Amino acid sequence: MKILDCTLRDGGYYTNWDFSKELVNNYLKSFNDLPADYLEIGYRSNPMNEYLGEYFYCPVYLLEEIRSLSKKKLVIILNEKDVRPEHVSALLSPCIGLIDMVRIALDPQYLGRALKLAAEIKKLNFEVGFNIMYMSKWKNYGGFLDEIKYVDEVADYFYMVDSYGGVYPGDVIETIKMVKERTTCPIGFHGHNNMELGLINSLTAIEHGAEIIDVTITGMGRGAGNLKTELLLTALNAKEGLEVDFNTLSILVDSFEKLQKQYSWGSNLPYMVSGANSLPQKDVMEWVSRRFYSFNSIIRALQNQKKGIKDNEQLPLFEPSEKFTNAIVIGGGPNGVQHATGVLAYLEKNPDSCIIHASSKNASYYKSANVPQFFCLVGNEGHRLEKIFTDLGGFNGKCVLPPFPRKMGTYIPATIRDNTFELDAIDFTSKLADTHTALALKTSLQLNAKNIMIVGYDGYQDSSLSQQERSLSEENEYLFTAFQNHHPEIKIEAITPTNYKTLPVTSVYQYLV
Amino acid sequence: MKILDCTLRDGGYYTNWDFSKELVNNYLKSFNDLPADYLEIGYRSNPMNEYLGEYFYCPVYLLEEIRSLSKKKLVIILNEKDVRPEHVSALLSPCIGLIDMVRIALDPQYLGRALKLAAEIKKLNFEVGFNIMYMSKWKNYGGFLDEIKYVDEVADYFYMVDSYGGVYPGDVIETIKMVKERTTCPIGFHGHNNMELGLINSLTAIEHGAEIIDVTITGMGRGAGNLKTELLLTALNAKEGLEVDFNTLSILVDSFEKLQKQYSWGSNLPYMVSGANSLPQKDVMEWVSRRFYSFNSIIRALQNQKKGIKDNEQLPLFEPSEKFTNAIVIGGGPNGVQHATGVLAYLEKNPDSCIIHASSKNASYYKSANVPQFFCLVGNEGHRLEKIFTDLGGFNGKCVLPPFPRKMGTYIPATIRDNTFELDAIDFTSKLADTHTALALKTSLQLNAKNIMIVGYDGYQDSSLSQQERSLSEENEYLFTAFQNHHPEIKIEAITPTNYKTLPVTSVYQYLV
Repeated sequence: MKILDCTLRDGGYYTNWDFSKELVNNYLKSFNDLPADYLEIGYRSNPMNEYLGEYFYCPVYLLEEIRSLSKKKLVIILNEKDVRPEHVSALLSPCIGLIDMVRIALDPQYLGRALKLAAEIKKLNFEVGFNIMYMSKWKNYGGFLDEIKYVDEVADYFYMVDSYGGVYPGDVIETIKMVKERTTCPIGFHGHNNMELGLINSLTAIEHGAEIIDVTITGMGRGAGNLKTELLLTALNAKEGLEVDFNTLSILVDSFEKLQKQYSWGSNLPYMVSGANSLPQKDVMEWVSRRFYSFNSIIRALQNQKKGIKDNEQLPLFEPSEKFTNAIVIGGGPNGVQHATGVLAYLEKNPDSCIIHASSKNASYYKSANVPQFFCLVGNEGHRLEKIFTDLGGFNGKCVLPPFPRKMGTYIPATIRDNTFELDAIDFTSKLADTHTALALKTSLQLNAKNIMIVGYDGYQDSSLSQQERSLSEENEYLFTAFQNHHPEIKIEAITPTNYKTLPVTSVYQYLV
Repeated sequence: MKILDCTLRDGGYYTNWDFSKELVNNYLKSFNDLPADYLEIGYRSNPMNEYLGEYFYCPVYLLEEIRSLSKKKLVIILNEKDVRPEHVSALLSPCIGLIDMVRIALDPQYLGRALKLAAEIKKLNFEVGFNIMYMSKWKNYGGFLDEIKYVDEVADYFYMVDSYGGVYPGDVIETIKMVKERTTCPIGFHGHNNMELGLINSLTAIEHGAEIIDVTITGMGRGAGNLKTELLLTALNAKEGLEVDFNTLSILVDSFEKLQKQYSWGSNLPYMVSGANSLPQKDVMEWVSRRFYSFNSIIRALQNQKKGIKDNEQLPLFEPSEKFTNAIVIGGGPNGVQHATGVLAYLEKNPDSCIIHASSKNASYYKSANVPQFFCLVGNEGHRLEKIFTDLGGFNGKCVLPPFPRKMGTYIPATIRDNTFELDAIDFTSKLADTHTALALKTSLQLNAKNIMIVGYDGYQDSSLSQQERSLSEENEYLFTAFQNHHPEIKIEAITPTNYKTLPVTSVYQYLV
């Protein structure tokens, strides 16, 4: 029985396939003393239309360096959907002598196409592995099941991939049986850990004849991540007497701790729900990494997906009769508190204004303002409003939601339902329509504001940027730019300190002199 | 099949049984809308000789308040080892009408004694549960197995507790069978999560007839923690259609996030190794929460325990022939770097001095000092030394280890083995003999220092104190006090800025004027 560690390949979903040389060198050196047979380094790929890092393309100099440092068999993987037999020579000939196995990640319905790809790869004398996704749904693919018998000729491993992290040991046993009836190709198992079943599913697979298991250090990998290398090795050490150098293993695990703190992979309630119900994880991973979606909003969205509901309901369109010269857009940064007195003084002087709370976080500091107030309801903001306005007894603002249909659900407190509206299509961006900033800018447009004054959009210092903060920061920069390009007729400026580079900056106090 | 949530009781191992009112109120309110049957609130206990919080004693006012907020059956637990039948009336009569079930946590070898305790509790008409530890070792307790048949008369639930977090589904099935042959008492399962087997073991237990399962929110609980409430509910929702209000559940899970960040419960490599090998977790929990033990040192200690080795070897005693007037003890704080030039100037002026590196963290800044240098080797310091002195080529310091026998292993680089010694018994403290500070102070004594000058012991600002930092800080304060009480003849002072309150503070610069 063999072990394949694919930390760099699968962990790349978090780092966009860039890793520091120090981390990788330590990884390779450590594995020289640990019982794994294969290390999967990354992808080889035709050019894609976005930034993807070094380990997504695995240039030859990188493979040479890794080959020189590692005593293990090395593996790269191809995405079947992006690679055709005619690409094989260009992508893989340079890897001869550096790489031992090429894996193919594929949707089961394209097994026929993948067989041709594998035949082409075999001509270059690589070992070939099929990593076949969506194992929990295989029994629904009749064509796929019929084609499994051809796998023997071209593949060295036939992997069952638990893409959703939702299969149980009983499913593993049943699927192995189904595969064994059709092929003698050695079986592999790649388990995700949404339900913390990675270990027991893998041990069950081994017990029922699987010959190779995928693992990653600390479980680093897409979404909730994988079976942890250290967990499988510890279990096999205690149960089967597998020799493990725990000093080396613990140094290796430690070296991923900093990245783990930065990206927070691992399971949590949203991943559990998506796993248990075989819902796609791509959305969940995006939502979890964006700081303004609480677990609560994500769960609501997943429940909607499970029920096949795009959103709970269509609301009346936001078609206000009022018009304002100035829209004060207030974000959730500390400067929204720090300069609240200044902003309130500005509103006293300029009553032809309104407040738009992009986030309600600072709303309590603006309760006394004598101008109409609008609240952008994204994700969990409804709960926040209930807290700030103590169950919304005296609340007289208006709330706006993203355009229908909404992917993410939104909590709307019952007491303010009559004052809640949804926005019409947003013209200045086709994506990010469900973000605080897009809503606030669209609301300003609907209110015919000539001037948009941004408050409490502090942004972040580069040095302290977490992945979530970077993502939020980039989204806001993008939206400010897109808005200015589409609406040059509107003046937009930050009037409190900001780290956003795409916003002109003035000062609230210059208007109070 | 019933669910018992024991977050407050088992989570108390991390918070010392203190919880904020806000957290508890939200917990109780949330569970009113969630499918759990019992909530275990905490312990009732005779007075113990240490500080233990509100939920370890559960005073009546607290139980009344909780009773008024919760619609669920409420549970408290007793530690069998500390409670006798004659204590029952005083401990439990006040709980009548407030509490529904009393559980007894017990070592299987004391089941006989526990049966008498249970009979006494039954007189007060409580439901009674037995929580019987060390399930993986039950088959070795013949007397216990014989006594199980008496359980029917006094207990409502007979819990199998996987104390080490190391049992597998097969063990669960086997143990249930063993219990069912002896009693008709409903069976419960309390699973720990060291090997991420909490869910599958619990589902297996249910499938084989267990009628009640313990869970905690986010798995909060001693050591690696428990089966997560949210994971069991998600699984039962998807598999069995159990009705779960995921909005409420996610708000509840979120509310524990801050505590989780503070205390970091959950599994990691040391807990996996202790679980897989049925090693006690109390030590591991202490080591993991003390920041100066790397996973590597903990694993080494666990491997030693597994092999029955107290420590790898006995070293020559540290019996130096040199004597020094001044010992400069250098800690790992930033002030050890900031004021290095001043300290080096002091050493130029006072060559009858030596340096003792309590931590090697700042050692590279003192390489040029022209006085003998001593290094305290605790846990991972050996690896640090190798890094700082590039494989110890030009290293000419001496290293000291804690007295023999050592609970924790210590890594000693081969090249410096001849210059490595162990200390004799430490006179000024009976505990904490394996800490950096105890070693440094003991080394100063051995070197006959008249003056101990402390550098780079910055301590921490109260406001930013993590659990680990607080623990380290308290240990050092304790050691400084104990040392000064035992050795009034020695002058000890901090000569760089420090937050430690038990150290007299002067300035390195006052000696350079």
